[in-house]
Amino acid sequence: MTNNGIVTLLTDFGLRDHFVAAMKGVMLSLNPDLAFVDVSHLVTPQDIFGAAFTLGQAWPLFPLKTIHLAVVDPGVGTARKALVASAGGHFFVAPDNGILTFVMEGRDDFTAYEITAEHYFRKPVSDTFHGRDIFAPIAAWISRGIPLEQLGNRLPEPVRLKVPVARKVREGLIQGAVLAVDQFGNLITNVKPSDVPPSSRVILPGQREVTSFRKTYAEGQPGEVFVVAGSTGYLEITLKGGSAASLLDLNTGAPIGVAPV
Amino acid sequence: MTNNGIVTLLTDFGLRDHFVAAMKGVMLSLNPDLAFVDVSHLVTPQDIFGAAFTLGQAWPLFPLKTIHLAVVDPGVGTARKALVASAGGHFFVAPDNGILTFVMEGRDDFTAYEITAEHYFRKPVSDTFHGRDIFAPIAAWISRGIPLEQLGNRLPEPVRLKVPVARKVREGLIQGAVLAVDQFGNLITNVKPSDVPPSSRVILPGQREVTSFRKTYAEGQPGEVFVVAGSTGYLEITLKGGSAASLLDLNTGAPIGVAPV
Amino acid sequence: MTNNGIVTLLTDFGLRDHFVAAMKGVMLSLNPDLAFVDVSHLVTPQDIFGAAFTLGQAWPLFPLKTIHLAVVDPGVGTARKALVASAGGHFFVAPDNGILTFVMEGRDDFTAYEITAEHYFRKPVSDTFHGRDIFAPIAAWISRGIPLEQLGNRLPEPVRLKVPVARKVREGLIQGAVLAVDQFGNLITNVKPSDVPPSSRVILPGQREVTSFRKTYAEGQPGEVFVVAGSTGYLEITLKGGSAASLLDLNTGAPIGVAPV
Repeated sequence: MTNNGIVTLLTDFGLRDHFVAAMKGVMLSLNPDLAFVDVSHLVTPQDIFGAAFTLGQAWPLFPLKTIHLAVVDPGVGTARKALVASAGGHFFVAPDNGILTFVMEGRDDFTAYEITAEHYFRKPVSDTFHGRDIFAPIAAWISRGIPLEQLGNRLPEPVRLKVPVARKVREGLIQGAVLAVDQFGNLITNVKPSDVPPSSRVILPGQREVTSFRKTYAEGQPGEVFVVAGSTGYLEITLKGGSAASLLDLNTGAPIGVAPV
Repeated sequence: MTNNGIVTLLTDFGLRDHFVAAMKGVMLSLNPDLAFVDVSHLVTPQDIFGAAFTLGQAWPLFPLKTIHLAVVDPGVGTARKALVASAGGHFFVAPDNGILTFVMEGRDDFTAYEITAEHYFRKPVSDTFHGRDIFAPIAAWISRGIPLEQLGNRLPEPVRLKVPVARKVREGLIQGAVLAVDQFGNLITNVKPSDVPPSSRVILPGQREVTSFRKTYAEGQPGEVFVVAGSTGYLEITLKGGSAASLLDLNTGAPIGVAPV
Repeated sequence: MTNNGIVTLLTDFGLRDHFVAAMKGVMLSLNPDLAFVDVSHLVTPQDIFGAAFTLGQAWPLFPLKTIHLAVVDPGVGTARKALVASAGGHFFVAPDNGILTFVMEGRDDFTAYEITAEHYFRKPVSDTFHGRDIFAPIAAWISRGIPLEQLGNRLPEPVRLKVPVARKVREGLIQGAVLAVDQFGNLITNVKPSDVPPSSRVILPGQREVTSFRKTYAEGQPGEVFVVAGSTGYLEITLKGGSAASLLDLNTGAPIGVAPV
């Protein structure tokens, strides 16, 4: 399987320092024809689950044979493994810490290899910046056609984070959770709109509830909390003109419910 | 009219989440040869006028036949129209909410079409993310050579925001306004330096005035408020070492005057 | 010497306004085939030394014949010179204010020319935005093959900032300084790990010391301050789970020492 020369990048390196450019420079030095797309470099530092969710939303929209480089890596320099993987006709390069969790979700073609072929690394390898010294060069070598199996042995059980799944407790009653919070404070749940009967309400921790369902962010009154069918494919709890997460003091993992009015 | 494969992006989506990458992925999936330039994704959320000003400063600097995608879209999912347009040999894709106001300024070749050709959309179309599902694919289809008139009917009266115009009240006396505030707090007015006679002062609300005119930001004393001929082509009120907007508590739309000393 | 069509950008222009896109538009209008890599646009405003350090970390990682455009320019519009330079097979375009200090470090092939060939400028030249009107077009003209010597005369003594050098005072005793602070608050010193004997401690101003040396950020207890061999090639003082710079109230230039335990 060849690649298309597009490399996406997702990190928690921020945008002030040289870190992201360092990775791009290393890749361009190995393959000057690459085209980069930044998914985000403002992932909350060390928030592997949040990064995994963001990558899960972005990668399927890219063309087949894109290389996705994802480096949120609190364990850099430790015994945590590094991996390359393929799934859905795309390539992935990342630490083996669960950042590919949402790539694995519901796919049986996810195939990972542990990166051990040190001759492809940038030397000397820093213990604190594998993005520059291991992950970037490996992504570039993949773009030059090195097959994944040449980079190391199969990694049969890559780390996979627990993703909360919404459960139908009984007719019309769903137990779910907040899956992610976007930068505007919208609470993205794990409940699919199609599973929610008409005349439902959303129940929040602390015996609070949201009864207002709307179609767009533009509706509603300033200060109103309401539910929309978000662009991620899940119900989203939003606050008109503000951050629902702050107002409601809820974050990723918070339990929510759906019940009849 | 063909295009040059360059797409600029201007949004208020921020840089933390997957939103911008989602649009780029959708476009690359339709045309993998596109080159992107981010104008800004840090527009103040829902600030259509501010986005319009930013676009107005950026677009004429790009090569002919560039495609400009501008999505600050508080009305997403509502009855607000979506449009494609051409002007000055460039292409524009945006909600019909005035974000192209400064593209229209002083041009008689601005030609807009309402986007109605749904078969070019990404399906299903989310009610909260037309950037990904409508605007991005339309921009990519334009880059593949689809003529604008194939995307919908002429839109004879696209929304156009009111732009305050500086008026010469009498000789040496000008009534103007703050047109924009940049991220450093410089107040960009709508008064052209060539209209200001020597020995003038700038009058601010609250019976305040600025009498110091300088050539560069480097001049002046720390804490001094002064006027420069800004790079936008307008007078700019600046504070040495700080934000003039904060110090003076002025924002876009604030009235200013120019009068003889 | 030809170039490779890659232009890196380093500025303190921020990411909200049109400034960076303006420079890219100007360059693409002169050479539509350029590929851009943003090193950073979030340099602390007017922090030339910090920008110089960031550029010093990034540029050697790029392919030969890359063009590096660096515009942190508090003296814009004043008598400060503008320069183009070559070093190590790369090109540089910048104000002559020391921003290339770390490019010059330890190189004897650094060759600079004062930019005076005004017919390559964008007209009219704003006194407040040479990035758009001088530096961007010059970078684009270099990418089109204009030799540096055609842009002006040799600049024999470009501005070079003083870089603190670590000195071995006596065996095991080193006097150094903080060279840079990254956005996470890690204090990057000018002391090379290879110069530090085993059983050393780092001495900080105010009779404080750090005795804990570790290999990775992942080690250590929350709240612990420790030393790692950073990816820049220097010792780094880090705080587990926070900003060492804030906790210790230290910044670039702060003196540090290394002494036996």
